[in-house]
Amino acid sequence: MAQDGGKKLVEAITPMEEDFAKWYTDIVKKAELVDYSSMRGCLFIRPYAYAIWENIQKVLDAKFKETGHENVYMPLFIPESLLQKEKDHIEGFAPEVAWVTHGGGEKLEERLCVRPTSETLFCEHYSHIVHSYRDLPKLYNQWCSVVRWEKTTRPFLRSLEFLWQEGHTLHETEAEAREETTRMLNIYADFCEQVLAMPVVKGRKTEKEKFAGAVDTCSIEAMMHDGKALQSGTSHYLGDGFTHAFDIQYTGRDNTLKYPFQTSWGVTTRLIGAIIMVHGDDSGLVLPPRIAPTQLVIVPVAMHKPGVLEKANELLVRLQKTLRVKLDASDNSPGWKFAEYEMKGVPLRLEIGPRDIEQNRCVVVRRDDRQKIEVSLDELETRLPAILDDVHEALYKKALERQNAMTYACTDWDGFVRTADEKPGFIKAMWCGDQACEEKIKTDAGLTSRNIPFEQEHLSDTCICCGKPAKHMVYWGKAY
Amino acid sequence: MAQDGGKKLVEAITPMEEDFAKWYTDIVKKAELVDYSSMRGCLFIRPYAYAIWENIQKVLDAKFKETGHENVYMPLFIPESLLQKEKDHIEGFAPEVAWVTHGGGEKLEERLCVRPTSETLFCEHYSHIVHSYRDLPKLYNQWCSVVRWEKTTRPFLRSLEFLWQEGHTLHETEAEAREETTRMLNIYADFCEQVLAMPVVKGRKTEKEKFAGAVDTCSIEAMMHDGKALQSGTSHYLGDGFTHAFDIQYTGRDNTLKYPFQTSWGVTTRLIGAIIMVHGDDSGLVLPPRIAPTQLVIVPVAMHKPGVLEKANELLVRLQKTLRVKLDASDNSPGWKFAEYEMKGVPLRLEIGPRDIEQNRCVVVRRDDRQKIEVSLDELETRLPAILDDVHEALYKKALERQNAMTYACTDWDGFVRTADEKPGFIKAMWCGDQACEEKIKTDAGLTSRNIPFEQEHLSDTCICCGKPAKHMVYWGKAY
Repeated sequence: MAQDGGKKLVEAITPMEEDFAKWYTDIVKKAELVDYSSMRGCLFIRPYAYAIWENIQKVLDAKFKETGHENVYMPLFIPESLLQKEKDHIEGFAPEVAWVTHGGGEKLEERLCVRPTSETLFCEHYSHIVHSYRDLPKLYNQWCSVVRWEKTTRPFLRSLEFLWQEGHTLHETEAEAREETTRMLNIYADFCEQVLAMPVVKGRKTEKEKFAGAVDTCSIEAMMHDGKALQSGTSHYLGDGFTHAFDIQYTGRDNTLKYPFQTSWGVTTRLIGAIIMVHGDDSGLVLPPRIAPTQLVIVPVAMHKPGVLEKANELLVRLQKTLRVKLDASDNSPGWKFAEYEMKGVPLRLEIGPRDIEQNRCVVVRRDDRQKIEVSLDELETRLPAILDDVHEALYKKALERQNAMTYACTDWDGFVRTADEKPGFIKAMWCGDQACEEKIKTDAGLTSRNIPFEQEHLSDTCICCGKPAKHMVYWGKAY
Repeated sequence: MAQDGGKKLVEAITPMEEDFAKWYTDIVKKAELVDYSSMRGCLFIRPYAYAIWENIQKVLDAKFKETGHENVYMPLFIPESLLQKEKDHIEGFAPEVAWVTHGGGEKLEERLCVRPTSETLFCEHYSHIVHSYRDLPKLYNQWCSVVRWEKTTRPFLRSLEFLWQEGHTLHETEAEAREETTRMLNIYADFCEQVLAMPVVKGRKTEKEKFAGAVDTCSIEAMMHDGKALQSGTSHYLGDGFTHAFDIQYTGRDNTLKYPFQTSWGVTTRLIGAIIMVHGDDSGLVLPPRIAPTQLVIVPVAMHKPGVLEKANELLVRLQKTLRVKLDASDNSPGWKFAEYEMKGVPLRLEIGPRDIEQNRCVVVRRDDRQKIEVSLDELETRLPAILDDVHEALYKKALERQNAMTYACTDWDGFVRTADEKPGFIKAMWCGDQACEEKIKTDAGLTSRNIPFEQEHLSDTCICCGKPAKHMVYWGKAY
């Protein structure tokens, strides 16, 4: 490890091909995204990662509000008796909750669960405030952290505590609630594609993989660099199971008592893991421009020559009106800075030195493909946003091409098992709908169903596993 | 309870004079700020209250970032051994923490405290990342919820769980850290005065009242309608006690190892309680315009006459560019709407009916003093922001006048005790600095020291209690 201007030189990270898991943890540490705490499975989320999360929040929160949702805050603790009201829900969550048993120096009469999700709390609240069809719909969301007691953990992907948003809505009719479920899934998918430059597969989860307490769970699934799937967002149609369990009734338009229909939906800090594993490379992070905390870093070259720092500062002030810009005027060498901002995945680097100033131009270097672009200083305000859009498109295209290239269609069992064994990626194959086949696929091919995509293809008439008539085409894969 | 257009008429609330505590809880329920959960001392924070909190967050967060602070997120749980590292800190907090003892179906080897505050977590993180003077200062903040096991609770004022922000910073020198402590207290005070229209007294807490683990605690104290004090924000100079306890050392400019100096500072959802109790009246909430989720509500009169709803809608679209506006086009009567938005404390109501439209004007009614102002429809964009500024100034002035009128200066013990007994409010009196006198004042007069104001006055030479030479003038009062 060399020193440069008093700061450590960026250490090389493990190449992706050599050890993907190590590459991932190298990035989360060296790009200063997280630090490990002595609290197992919990993270110190550092400013750079939190700034990414804030940008995610900002875009999504505006979208939620645009579609009529309001933010609320529910308690962190759920009394055990409340959690137990909905049978499937408690069965699903009981094994992975944390229990508070003592408070204020005394043993509590009833144990309190640290929320793993807040359906039960929202239901208690609904039971107090929903009386008439005039009180519907309720369109709520909350930003908070939740706790799930995972045995093995990985930064952003699986942790004891994670940050998320959870939407919870209540509607007069099943149709309205189902429409909401789809609306929110589409908002997530559009966000992933248009903001994170990350293609996703939209579909419905199988019975085996759905949320504890849901009638239907829809998901978006993204393919990581190593071909594994990351479930990147879910939207649940909960039916009226919870509203029955919590006795939430309202007087309908026809003056009779009815149970409303419910949804819930969420995305988490997993999205940061997805960004790393979809776009990153062996030099570090590659951040999609629309979410990058810094979209462009100005690196002065020959900084101590007269006029250079002044010009760099002038550009900073000018460009801050259009972009999220940073100037690095520290005494580290330009080489150190180049490596540092590559590691941090800053989409564009603007180099400016004495010769550039003379010629009224600068060099803009793209992080994604390292292309160097000469730009006149007079045209920065128009050119830079256009270059950032190009970067976004290029990232999306690259990810989509990889996903397509690593998605295989199989119509016979041997081919399916062999592909699963030899080729990382997704396999599309027909399925009879029987859970036994899903389990055999898990045992024999090591794959789980990712989802039943909304865009169905007819690959064959029969189930890949048992040969009986097929009901759906399913995406199969290994998942984080 | 009468019905109007299918909705309940707003019920009257308990008058402030009759029962201040009941007046307060009536408002929090009837203005739909909170709903009580079956989890004792925890609240469902409803959309209207959460929107106030979001506005508070937005203004403060921008201010924190402007002054160089970065947001991070630390774990919810603190292992018991970590919490115990700083002796004063654990002594102060141990009686009021909640303990997680079981997770994932198993008894934990070490109990985990649900964070009551995060100094210990920040310190662990600092110990990993601070090595050189080049790594300083660290200027961090986090928005989260914390848990303190209170025996008696009141919405926003004292609850088991509350939302807050906690700033945590680390500096090379004591002077820098003390400067930061003052800077952040000033940001809080300016925020209260310029945004919440709430005068505050800035000062230093006595030894007895300071934060567990702090060298000095500074606070801002606001006077509620009933004369009681609400500590509305604190900023702590922590010295190097924690950095010694956590062995946080850095190599200084002189190449020797040193311990850095630390601060922490926070405000909470208590501020919502303060807004209610400083500005509210017997018709409900009165929201300061700069924080009100809705600054102006448009109420169409004779809504079903031709052109009225169209004009109301046109105004909505127009005014949304300048203000946070809402149009209530529901089938409730104007009278119901007037009462509803008075209860909700919306600063301005704009009434528009057929005659107004004919005359190209409308009537704007101020919530604070019920003044009716005729405004030409052509002048809304300029007049409304000016009226909102007037409302802000009037609210601040009224609160300051009340605070001044209810602040007494005492120079003899009998007068002090009699004033404490007879007059709600603050008492200014001299103090020798001895904790015994502070305790006697608590026992005999029922008052605690609020703070030692930065703006000192010399009322007399001797302590109000013991007659020995006085060191400071102190604000004394009853507190929430």
